[in-house]
Amino acid sequence: MTSPLPDPSTALARPSGSSLALLTDKYELTMLAAALADGTAHRQTTFEVFARRLPDGRRYGVTGGTARVVEALPRFRFGDDELAALAPFCDEATLAFLAGYRFTGDIDGYPEGELYFPGSPVLSVRGTFAECVLLETLVLSIFNHDTAIASAAARMVSAAEGRPLIEMGSRRTHEEAAVAASRAAYLAGFTGSSNLEAERTYGVPALGTSAHAFTLLHTVAGQSASDGEKAAFRAQVDALGIDTTLLVDTYDISAGVANAIEVAGPGLGAVRIDSGDLGVLTRQVRDQLDRLGATGTKIVVSGDLDEFAIAALRAEPVDLYGVGTSVVTGSGAPTASMVYKLVEVDGLPVAKRSSRKESHGGRKQALRLAKESGTIVEEIVHPYTEPAATPDGLVGRTVTTALVRDGNPVADLTLGPARERVQHGLRSLPWDGLKLSKGDPAVPTRMIAPRGR
Amino acid sequence: MTSPLPDPSTALARPSGSSLALLTDKYELTMLAAALADGTAHRQTTFEVFARRLPDGRRYGVTGGTARVVEALPRFRFGDDELAALAPFCDEATLAFLAGYRFTGDIDGYPEGELYFPGSPVLSVRGTFAECVLLETLVLSIFNHDTAIASAAARMVSAAEGRPLIEMGSRRTHEEAAVAASRAAYLAGFTGSSNLEAERTYGVPALGTSAHAFTLLHTVAGQSASDGEKAAFRAQVDALGIDTTLLVDTYDISAGVANAIEVAGPGLGAVRIDSGDLGVLTRQVRDQLDRLGATGTKIVVSGDLDEFAIAALRAEPVDLYGVGTSVVTGSGAPTASMVYKLVEVDGLPVAKRSSRKESHGGRKQALRLAKESGTIVEEIVHPYTEPAATPDGLVGRTVTTALVRDGNPVADLTLGPARERVQHGLRSLPWDGLKLSKGDPAVPTRMIAPRGR
Repeated sequence: MTSPLPDPSTALARPSGSSLALLTDKYELTMLAAALADGTAHRQTTFEVFARRLPDGRRYGVTGGTARVVEALPRFRFGDDELAALAPFCDEATLAFLAGYRFTGDIDGYPEGELYFPGSPVLSVRGTFAECVLLETLVLSIFNHDTAIASAAARMVSAAEGRPLIEMGSRRTHEEAAVAASRAAYLAGFTGSSNLEAERTYGVPALGTSAHAFTLLHTVAGQSASDGEKAAFRAQVDALGIDTTLLVDTYDISAGVANAIEVAGPGLGAVRIDSGDLGVLTRQVRDQLDRLGATGTKIVVSGDLDEFAIAALRAEPVDLYGVGTSVVTGSGAPTASMVYKLVEVDGLPVAKRSSRKESHGGRKQALRLAKESGTIVEEIVHPYTEPAATPDGLVGRTVTTALVRDGNPVADLTLGPARERVQHGLRSLPWDGLKLSKGDPAVPTRMIAPRGR
Repeated sequence: MTSPLPDPSTALARPSGSSLALLTDKYELTMLAAALADGTAHRQTTFEVFARRLPDGRRYGVTGGTARVVEALPRFRFGDDELAALAPFCDEATLAFLAGYRFTGDIDGYPEGELYFPGSPVLSVRGTFAECVLLETLVLSIFNHDTAIASAAARMVSAAEGRPLIEMGSRRTHEEAAVAASRAAYLAGFTGSSNLEAERTYGVPALGTSAHAFTLLHTVAGQSASDGEKAAFRAQVDALGIDTTLLVDTYDISAGVANAIEVAGPGLGAVRIDSGDLGVLTRQVRDQLDRLGATGTKIVVSGDLDEFAIAALRAEPVDLYGVGTSVVTGSGAPTASMVYKLVEVDGLPVAKRSSRKESHGGRKQALRLAKESGTIVEEIVHPYTEPAATPDGLVGRTVTTALVRDGNPVADLTLGPARERVQHGLRSLPWDGLKLSKGDPAVPTRMIAPRGR
């Protein structure tokens, strides 16, 4: 457990352009070194990614991150800088292996956006121990983060019953996690995000107009707050047009709405309310807007919304929800508890047997059973070499697909089809599965052990 | 609220080498455009970062991210790629401003590692509205993340009462957030981390030896699990020496301990237990090690530890704690709820007045009062221009320091002194402040409004 202690450096951000290879736990390298030395490094292995359980009381999960994992593989290389960082504890043979490393194995798994349940084999990574073990941390980091966000976001989408949602929580999470969170929320059915980098990198539509600071900026000594607010609204409408969204709760909301319509006219795009009792306020603001002739002006609400608050506003005249903290932090479940477990060595199923962490050995595949109506009834996880039968009267669909062959992507990784998959998945849940309250998984998972074990 | 919709791209990771400037909410750019158009963009402003409250029941917080914010400033530039991404909705004047943008203002704040309480002005960012408003999202992302982790980690350090802790949660959080989380845990007093990138970038000592997969890898058809375990231990000891840590709970723990000492001898560095009832198991394992003559072999425990589990193990023969999920997710509080609020415009204090979100206007500074014993008693937040008096018999210390002048760092941003600050802060808390149970902030914050208001 010892390691040379470098001088604490200043907090310079990780050099850009660097590879992803050190986004890794040290023990993967020490295991590699030991396995290279005793010859086991080249055994053929299968590692499986799955969650033993859903977050507390959740009824389904949404797989997120599959595409990011696949796209990360070519950047998982050890260049001179990475090798220099490892040299203090890696022997020459290990460093030589790393210098030539690229993942050349196969990956099967759930297409991004598919529902998952406890035990679902969402990824199956195959290759030599040496090439697979190195990917553990990066694969899990991406999967645990993106899946946590997508799973929470899907509950919000479901609770909103068709009304659009905007992700605006970048400021509440790590700056790079924010970009992935925007992507995961969009995957789950959000309409867009506040995050500009998510638009550039992933094509997530960026949205946003102004903050309270913009109204406060227009404060002038000796003038009323209302005059300042009108000046701010005028500046915004001049710059962005009347289709913009004016933030009306900096001072008094009724006065804010009146000022907004006075400045923009009844053709104003929307008003946003970011504080207070949103149920009461949206009804009041809707009445006021209608009385002012602004019947087409929409109402955007934001401010500590989660899936429960969204559901509670269903009866109110809300046109668009802005969701921040709760979506980027997984609404109480910031990680998906996915694990990356060695399940097969040279064709032999293997499994840990210490207390309370049993896992089933062997490479697996999943068959999802549904009624003819499309409502799903069971997730069957079976050995890859022993196909499961679909009972009469039910429809079976193999969820597992090929994602990577010989290290190269072979699946469609675009967000459009993945977004459709999420919506299809939500429609396939039994009614109980869409409840926001705590409960059991929407469908049971049946684990079929390899024959003769 | 409309935006041109790009084709959803594939999930390629953000191009490395790119600037940090798009890690930003779109509304900062639309506000900038409107403010440039009406001339308010050049007003002198102060934005303040603070938390209205601590996470539910926490008694103190630890500021994290200060150094990362300061070090991020030079990378917050708009190059050709960033300008092209903004061109669809930014006018020429705004793009021209952005092309020449660099932050040239001043930042004061709490040195990294200082305790904070509700209302503590942990950062004060001053400059024109145009240059300050653009930093909102990046500053908050860094601060909210790093502070959440540092605050949770400090509770664990305090609960461990001097025993070392290792952060090993990289796999449970976004891959880049993991690096910052390692840094924040180390800041708060952890001994090291599993994360290799955190060692390279920030000098956080990297630690780790092996996982269950390494033992399972040594499974051979027809041989017993115990033989496989011994082969794995032998390979590890051969590669890493007897000072290594052997993971003994893959199969049967007693057999694992016996195998470990048989292979490594009584000079073995440590054994790790990752599952089961850790209290009972550590006593049993300690007895067994001692009986085998391995009285110097340490016991490392891991597996869903948080500050409460750490405290519960105080009476047990644990030598080192490995902490994963709970520390990287802030142990129930994954974000610090920091906000970035405009508090002053051209010397005039400004504040939002809508319901339940009052904030105090004006640039502020903090004075921390302590007894002569060093135990703190009160946090006084006062207008910058109106120094607060230290009452007789107490010792007052100005917490606020200069961090950036004219856009350049002027403070020591290294981790060593920041780590000392955290430990000093923990020692300065009243006894009640160190309780893990839910309660009020350890000391009250007194907010002094500007005179004549």
